[in-house]
Amino acid sequence: MYAFSKAVNSMHSEDVKQLMKQASGKNLISFAGGMPNNDLFPVKEIDEIYNSLPEDVKKLCFQYGPTSGYPPLVKSLECYLENKGLAVANNKILITTGSLQAISIIAREFVNEGDIILTENPCFVGALTVFETVGAEIHSIPIDKNGINIKALKSKIESLDRKPKFLYVTPNYHNPAGIVYTPERKKALLEALSGSGIILIEDDAYSDLYFDETERHLTRSMKSMGDNDVEIIYTGSFSKILGPGFRLGFMLSSEEIFEKAETVKQALDACTSSFTQILANEFLVQEKLEPYLTFLRSEYLERKNMLQKYLKLYMPEEIKWNEPKGGFYIWLKLPPHIKSTDIFKESVAKGVVFVTGRTFDPASEKDDRLRLSFSNMPKDQIEKGVRILSEAINQVLQSSKVGIS
Amino acid sequence: MYAFSKAVNSMHSEDVKQLMKQASGKNLISFAGGMPNNDLFPVKEIDEIYNSLPEDVKKLCFQYGPTSGYPPLVKSLECYLENKGLAVANNKILITTGSLQAISIIAREFVNEGDIILTENPCFVGALTVFETVGAEIHSIPIDKNGINIKALKSKIESLDRKPKFLYVTPNYHNPAGIVYTPERKKALLEALSGSGIILIEDDAYSDLYFDETERHLTRSMKSMGDNDVEIIYTGSFSKILGPGFRLGFMLSSEEIFEKAETVKQALDACTSSFTQILANEFLVQEKLEPYLTFLRSEYLERKNMLQKYLKLYMPEEIKWNEPKGGFYIWLKLPPHIKSTDIFKESVAKGVVFVTGRTFDPASEKDDRLRLSFSNMPKDQIEKGVRILSEAINQVLQSSKVGIS
Repeated sequence: MYAFSKAVNSMHSEDVKQLMKQASGKNLISFAGGMPNNDLFPVKEIDEIYNSLPEDVKKLCFQYGPTSGYPPLVKSLECYLENKGLAVANNKILITTGSLQAISIIAREFVNEGDIILTENPCFVGALTVFETVGAEIHSIPIDKNGINIKALKSKIESLDRKPKFLYVTPNYHNPAGIVYTPERKKALLEALSGSGIILIEDDAYSDLYFDETERHLTRSMKSMGDNDVEIIYTGSFSKILGPGFRLGFMLSSEEIFEKAETVKQALDACTSSFTQILANEFLVQEKLEPYLTFLRSEYLERKNMLQKYLKLYMPEEIKWNEPKGGFYIWLKLPPHIKSTDIFKESVAKGVVFVTGRTFDPASEKDDRLRLSFSNMPKDQIEKGVRILSEAINQVLQSSKVGIS
Repeated sequence: MYAFSKAVNSMHSEDVKQLMKQASGKNLISFAGGMPNNDLFPVKEIDEIYNSLPEDVKKLCFQYGPTSGYPPLVKSLECYLENKGLAVANNKILITTGSLQAISIIAREFVNEGDIILTENPCFVGALTVFETVGAEIHSIPIDKNGINIKALKSKIESLDRKPKFLYVTPNYHNPAGIVYTPERKKALLEALSGSGIILIEDDAYSDLYFDETERHLTRSMKSMGDNDVEIIYTGSFSKILGPGFRLGFMLSSEEIFEKAETVKQALDACTSSFTQILANEFLVQEKLEPYLTFLRSEYLERKNMLQKYLKLYMPEEIKWNEPKGGFYIWLKLPPHIKSTDIFKESVAKGVVFVTGRTFDPASEKDDRLRLSFSNMPKDQIEKGVRILSEAINQVLQSSKVGIS
């Protein structure tokens, strides 16, 4: 039900909302939700943590904390980020109420109505909602399987009469595209931005969720790639490595950006929940994260492999996709004359939902893709879900052929 | 330490911040913090609740919830509010990440840069921070011991060339003034606003904290005072009746205002923590709130009585105040030529802090008051704290007399 309302919330199109509402009584198979399945959460670990909290720390759970974050969690996050190769020393961490709040704070810090923001196309829909709310003019740059298109980025920047306030990207296990930027593309992006004065927002919610340890190096953050003259704000989240219900995210930035961000946060919610910050801190300090990630990686790999297997088995040959190396998503490519919104209408009637391609296009137009999430999908429903979806796709393909002939 | 940084955060004046920082190593007695003492939180009750959550509900703690709030909590809040005489039926509840977020959402929903907002003077400083962030032009109306000055309000509205977007008030156990509006003043306020088209924001964080059951009727909300043509948005908080660390608040408004507010919230933090919402819901459903409030009322009454007793004993006769009937605060009145900022400088040097009067003036000028909070004060420090504060006040009074003679 939550996954469902979440998916509804994250869709632009009114008619799709209508369809989802009509179908809400049915027992849908959902590839829509970009969140972990309820059965994957570390409930036992948090139980142990909660029940072994010293009395004085437990009382702190109930109290206000500093706007910038619960100090022991800031310290634990420093270790966590240093372990990822991030130079925390010259930067400051601000803990936020989910990483969406970090994006919201950054937007409010830098963007006035009518200012330009650059995004990828497709782009994480939560960020798009924020950017629309602050009245930004969004220009999007296409991505391919290796990352953002550098040539398109450069020519976009040249074509604009004003300097964009920032470029927002999600380079690791992209939502919705599933790709990870190659190291070369990350380097090329930094070179392209060098000297432009455009801030880079590097949103990194998924980097811990690689499928293959030997490919971990692919998730290296641009913020960690040594000194250059590109100002980078790095954002991260506990939603994928602990649970979205904790509403915990963070941003790592220069001290100057941090200080303004702290002031913005002060007027948004004063501070993030001490309760969830204290539990998350113990999760890190007691070294429960790494074993939990090992479990998650194998669970998501298994789901990805199953989805991949059934897609190969059932999908008509016109449908293409890249196999992801981590994260939550497979991003199906349809023939250019087919709209994912049309497939959605057939599919939801048959009991399967996903998120349409145009949801992730800032202009709500480009619709030749669709996002399948395997993170929230019970394993025993994957085959049935893919079969039904394939039928819906075949149906739309057939009627389009009839239409053409 | 948190109370301390909170107090620093809520002060406007840079020199006061500097002083607080200098004193931060010392073991200060603090009348500054507007929050419950750590020893007052219902730790045992939440322990019981957490450990008896069914497995499937516990999993929901980790998951996203709807932007508008965890549905069972919305329902429990409906009962809680109906019990206060509030007509929930024609209105909708939005659960927020603390009631400050509700104020922030309302400000973002209605206010563009340069728009006028009316507030009380003095005014809750958190709300002032929000209103400043959205670039509002703040006009404040004085309050007396019975509530906002109606004549001043009317003449302010008449004098303005634009209609204010809303009037923000905290009628029950006002922060910082400690007063509760009389029923007559509440009625007069509604009459004054009738036909003006000015929305009333009724912020009601303290109404459960009356000292005397027979005076409970004084806390009746204006939103519950029958039908009239004033649009009222009612905001409330779990910070004073469960714990600020849960970051839980809510707003009750017409459906039209609710819908826009939900969209604003979606772009701020997607949803409020499921973890803390689920615990708070059980706190209400399992009827643990009322016994806890009975405990809190007697604890705060005892602290208030002690503070009252020692103020009478130690304060120089030039210092006046009204005895509060509930809430957290006593609002001392100084002779007109004495500034609370000067007293603060003496007092902090002697080891006692409070919040200066000018902190609560939107113009940061009016400084002939100071706020003492008894909610966060250990009982065994009250006498010593008042004695030291009285010495500081006497010192400033003496030197002002020397200056005059």
